[in-house]
Amino acid sequence: MKITETQAAEWLRANDNFIVITHRRPDGDTLASAAALVSGLRKSGKTAYVLKNEEATDKYLPFVEAYFASEGYEPSSVVTVDTASEEMFPANAAVYKDKTDLALDHHGSNSGYAKNICLRAEHAACGELVYDILMELNGAIDEKEAELLYVAVATDTGCFAYGNTNANTLRCAAFLVEAGAKNGALNKMLFRTQKKSRLMLESMMINGIEYYHDDKTAIAYVTGEMIKECGVTESELDDIASIPGKVEGVKVGVTIKELSDGTSKISVRTMPEVNANDICARFGGGGHNMAAGCTIAESPKKAGELIAAVIGEIMKDGQSV
Amino acid sequence: MKITETQAAEWLRANDNFIVITHRRPDGDTLASAAALVSGLRKSGKTAYVLKNEEATDKYLPFVEAYFASEGYEPSSVVTVDTASEEMFPANAAVYKDKTDLALDHHGSNSGYAKNICLRAEHAACGELVYDILMELNGAIDEKEAELLYVAVATDTGCFAYGNTNANTLRCAAFLVEAGAKNGALNKMLFRTQKKSRLMLESMMINGIEYYHDDKTAIAYVTGEMIKECGVTESELDDIASIPGKVEGVKVGVTIKELSDGTSKISVRTMPEVNANDICARFGGGGHNMAAGCTIAESPKKAGELIAAVIGEIMKDGQSV
Repeated sequence: MKITETQAAEWLRANDNFIVITHRRPDGDTLASAAALVSGLRKSGKTAYVLKNEEATDKYLPFVEAYFASEGYEPSSVVTVDTASEEMFPANAAVYKDKTDLALDHHGSNSGYAKNICLRAEHAACGELVYDILMELNGAIDEKEAELLYVAVATDTGCFAYGNTNANTLRCAAFLVEAGAKNGALNKMLFRTQKKSRLMLESMMINGIEYYHDDKTAIAYVTGEMIKECGVTESELDDIASIPGKVEGVKVGVTIKELSDGTSKISVRTMPEVNANDICARFGGGGHNMAAGCTIAESPKKAGELIAAVIGEIMKDGQSV
Repeated sequence: MKITETQAAEWLRANDNFIVITHRRPDGDTLASAAALVSGLRKSGKTAYVLKNEEATDKYLPFVEAYFASEGYEPSSVVTVDTASEEMFPANAAVYKDKTDLALDHHGSNSGYAKNICLRAEHAACGELVYDILMELNGAIDEKEAELLYVAVATDTGCFAYGNTNANTLRCAAFLVEAGAKNGALNKMLFRTQKKSRLMLESMMINGIEYYHDDKTAIAYVTGEMIKECGVTESELDDIASIPGKVEGVKVGVTIKELSDGTSKISVRTMPEVNANDICARFGGGGHNMAAGCTIAESPKKAGELIAAVIGEIMKDGQSV
């Protein structure tokens, strides 16, 4: 059943012993929203924990780990945040499949797996929704919750730079800053600081970009050798797919990452005039109109040639570029 | 005399034939705020122009050039935006020295050169102030003004990422988006796209960073040779001073740019625990606590050694790093 924020708060008030589930390959929005929700539930007198997410990276773990349930916790109410389908459940959440009481989500594509769903597809971040629910639940948020929700909202919008950012996002962020979120320090850590190793890798990627189709296609490579030379870890490879698309005039940005077996993982980011999903579908992959992926069982160099050829064909067909 | 936004709007209503002056080395805030103010003044029935700023770069020129005064325009009311002192006047504004009727500013350091000043040092951008004044003046802003003010506010805050961003900034941005500013497209252009030449230069800068003081100091170099090799123009050198400070753990980020005579222009960006102004003052420069500059009549290499030594001393004195 679709329910409003007010109804969601009522349901939370009427229940207890919550477990809050975050999604696979967790980002700042799912983890920090879950932590904020648990904090708010505890303040309203409830027992609540976040289900441990083994994939949480160093970047976000400090915000959420204090809220993780210990083994043996037996919840009676199951809530998910930012989780569009049960396929997005982490492995240790398998026992909760078919048992979600309430889903709090902003994915228009939500599969409807939960008994109750409070869905705001117009929100850029699930954190906006959790903010509204906590305000309904407790009438206020504390500084810690403000910080967590700021992390949620800011990370899902690339610090308010992505196209999903809207007036509600910005207004929500204003409330969070007013409620004590130290946005300057958080932004510095989340967006304006990179490990030396990551910056080195970015430099190498940019230097090695191959341009095609009058510079409308940019293909960046991340080989195993580059990763070794820079000393980057897997968790530092966040969002590298956006790098080739940063070049002015580029309509299709492709990032090719060499996998451990020497084959290639491809990420495609496009401007609206070229369909990323169409490109990746030719190689058995898929995704969204402006962001898609596939794997090609070839070396990065060969994969680059193959995908450049396909992009050329699709651009020609589209005639819009 | 210090006046409020309401008084500033009253003064604007009571006068006519405005020239709006922007500051030297103009940024998005001064240029787009000036353009928005002129647009609002015209809507309230006034004659108003922005004084042509010869230094406006390609990035911001399209937002403001339609509002530039033609030669021979004879204003009777002089307004400045975002201009802390008459030393910041562009050369062609020299005739207006000692003649500023109204200064709209957010620099706490404003020298008080204007007959009337509406100063909000707590604002991150002058655009926030101009927004409030236009709302006082006309009761609303149109889509074009919303776009201009969004450019002003977003550029002065690094798309809401810098430490100066506060709740008012974010709330103002929310209003601007609601009033029609296409924030997604504007952000893509302003913050998420770079010329190939600029990206190449950034890569070279990052690769060439020299680290000192247990990696707490990072010194990046921009030599004439690098500029030539990458083919970057002066207008693409915006904000390069922030690059060395992006490295995790760096407390002092120094950017040294070789000037045409072989000497060095220094920009220093610091974390709160080290005072940038103190560093630059040793070389006859100055600025703010976390952002300052100076010139050193030495080659970049030699200047780097000199400034590294001074930073080492100041860090030791501070004992806080």
